[in-house]
Amino acid sequence: MWDTILDRMLARLVSHGRLRVIYPDGTARQYGAGPDPATTLTIRQPRTVRALCLSPDLALGEGYVDGTIAIDQADLHDALALLVRNRTHGGLPAWAGAGARWRSRLAGWATRNTPARARRNVAHHYDLSDDFYRLFLDADMQYSCAYFTDPGMPLDQAQEAKKHHIAGKLLLRPGMRVLDIGCGWGGMALTLARDYGVQVTGITLSRNQRDTAQARVTAAGLDGRVTIRMADYRTISGHFDRIVSVGMLEHVGPAHYRTFFRRLRALLAEDGVALVHTIGFSEPPHPTSDWILRNIFPGGHIPSMSQLSPAYERAQLWLTDVEVLRGHYALTCQHWRARFEAALPEVRRMYDDRFVRMWRYYLVACQAAFEEQWQGVFQLQLARRQDAVPATRDYLYGADRNAYLHAAQ
Amino acid sequence: MWDTILDRMLARLVSHGRLRVIYPDGTARQYGAGPDPATTLTIRQPRTVRALCLSPDLALGEGYVDGTIAIDQADLHDALALLVRNRTHGGLPAWAGAGARWRSRLAGWATRNTPARARRNVAHHYDLSDDFYRLFLDADMQYSCAYFTDPGMPLDQAQEAKKHHIAGKLLLRPGMRVLDIGCGWGGMALTLARDYGVQVTGITLSRNQRDTAQARVTAAGLDGRVTIRMADYRTISGHFDRIVSVGMLEHVGPAHYRTFFRRLRALLAEDGVALVHTIGFSEPPHPTSDWILRNIFPGGHIPSMSQLSPAYERAQLWLTDVEVLRGHYALTCQHWRARFEAALPEVRRMYDDRFVRMWRYYLVACQAAFEEQWQGVFQLQLARRQDAVPATRDYLYGADRNAYLHAAQ
Repeated sequence: MWDTILDRMLARLVSHGRLRVIYPDGTARQYGAGPDPATTLTIRQPRTVRALCLSPDLALGEGYVDGTIAIDQADLHDALALLVRNRTHGGLPAWAGAGARWRSRLAGWATRNTPARARRNVAHHYDLSDDFYRLFLDADMQYSCAYFTDPGMPLDQAQEAKKHHIAGKLLLRPGMRVLDIGCGWGGMALTLARDYGVQVTGITLSRNQRDTAQARVTAAGLDGRVTIRMADYRTISGHFDRIVSVGMLEHVGPAHYRTFFRRLRALLAEDGVALVHTIGFSEPPHPTSDWILRNIFPGGHIPSMSQLSPAYERAQLWLTDVEVLRGHYALTCQHWRARFEAALPEVRRMYDDRFVRMWRYYLVACQAAFEEQWQGVFQLQLARRQDAVPATRDYLYGADRNAYLHAAQ
Repeated sequence: MWDTILDRMLARLVSHGRLRVIYPDGTARQYGAGPDPATTLTIRQPRTVRALCLSPDLALGEGYVDGTIAIDQADLHDALALLVRNRTHGGLPAWAGAGARWRSRLAGWATRNTPARARRNVAHHYDLSDDFYRLFLDADMQYSCAYFTDPGMPLDQAQEAKKHHIAGKLLLRPGMRVLDIGCGWGGMALTLARDYGVQVTGITLSRNQRDTAQARVTAAGLDGRVTIRMADYRTISGHFDRIVSVGMLEHVGPAHYRTFFRRLRALLAEDGVALVHTIGFSEPPHPTSDWILRNIFPGGHIPSMSQLSPAYERAQLWLTDVEVLRGHYALTCQHWRARFEAALPEVRRMYDDRFVRMWRYYLVACQAAFEEQWQGVFQLQLARRQDAVPATRDYLYGADRNAYLHAAQ
């Protein structure tokens, strides 16, 4: 019975591209049409067929990781891109979304990130060994979307470009006090202190990140300019000329957006400027993928602008600019995955086969989502006063570009 | 009794700057503190005192226009700026907002702009004599926010810069089909057709604007490239490579935002790009000033991002960029007012003293609102596909600037 249901679901779903599915009894079926060679998905267990009918997103990820769904490694990206593309075009029957809608009501709970839960969530992901992250990230360990001024740009250069693009939006002057909320392994804090002459306080909830960032600060001789603390954004006090937060808002959860922006306002000096860089949807809010929520980012949620705007409006913050980066994160994930595969012997010395498949699925699924969904990166620039930011964007581009950088040197 | 109530309201309201009020019985009172010389407001009728208590915004405008409130012409801007600034800082007692909150529930009705009502609303304002608008607008009759790359830029140049800045965001190529929703007196359509070699359909609901725009098109020898129609955005069909809408969304009303963005999507080609330029609040939605709604823009509403974002998200449009222009509209209003005052002898030949005071109050009140409130201009760039717009903004700035303009020539 479940084979028939899945067969009908897939027949309805796949209208862009071609998919070949081999069922547990050996039957092979093709879905979709067109000239592309079909990618093949082999289901090895009858229970996996049932799981795919009831909770497609979760079952696909879990099936791939535990090996009950086989997809040739070379086909993985095409298979996931095909499935995401067809879902984006609304190909699932109405009832198939029922589980997701029901779970979305629970999402408020799943992302009710109290300080204690936020700490556990962060530890789950970021306290994996630094040595592991070093294997696939750039030299500076930027674990967020890079900025490719050209699609062929090497990853290291695109991550440097990202930091300086953000620095430009922060309108830095030497000596300014900067808060970095979610400072990761300290790359942004080090760059701002070294290249722009500012005083940075970086905060993270990950012990590993704190220790590594602190060691890097000391090694760079920047202890006088950079302070790294293990702290929650809700417990910080003081006034900062600038606030930067890159790839942290995804961990905040919709229930806390108002608090987040209220804290931002409270921590900003009167003429302060903040830059929040976050993954974002250009579509109505929807719950995080169950598989991602369970396996990768507990408590995570990707915001839509319709969730962020009521929050910063109530916090009495001027939205002074929004850049919507499209394509950049797909490229970033593609680089990460290529480096991950290249480093596979080292990865296998640290983790088992299940972990390898989980991480591969995560990187490829994210790349496919950025390619096929209404999913990009928002860079929100916010201020307390409308004149805290120049009246045109010329300060960021053209002849004026990097005027602040040169002033700092 | 009403004198006492108004006295208490003002004592509570004014904490930034100084205001001197002369009551109908001749009593003079000072509010606020600080070194600024006080601006003086003379109330000539007891009934105006009562009206100011019950509906401050409406009564102030009506009192100024009918002469029962006197403000020295040189002081008008400072007086209005002072009142707006103090309101923005939350200086009115809770009950004073009750009327406004009650009216905001009715605002849905006030801005329920059916096609017939939309036509009447537009006629109210835009079918004033073209000769009048010519007296204070720039040579091209751009009746929307200019783009000042330098605050000292002359108005004509800043309006030219606005059109080319928008043209840059439209990524035009010769021969493209462009729809201009709310084309005014045709300035944008003419510029795009002449300088970028595109085919433009301009629509307006004002007969005056349609006639003037059509005459300008013919005079420019561009009948083959520009079509001007008197039409509502809801009745247009076809597919356009680009859509531009400047200063029109303010007339749409929140009840119609979903329809507006759905129409935008339906009218856009698959790889199309739209640019919507509108006044916007960087604060929670609130109703339009009663005085503006009654006297200047019936059916008008200034959107907040929290009202626009749910609408474009549901319409399945990619938000590809948002520029938030701050300060530019205050400068634009300042220019308009200076030109209006300089042309006063001609204005008086067309309209009576009451009209002159109404128009002066409108221009000054708008300038003050842009200076003191969370009110700016949003330029939303929207597309159906994420790759319809380049991955970085370099196409709009720096060396690539105007690449499209050069290609067109």
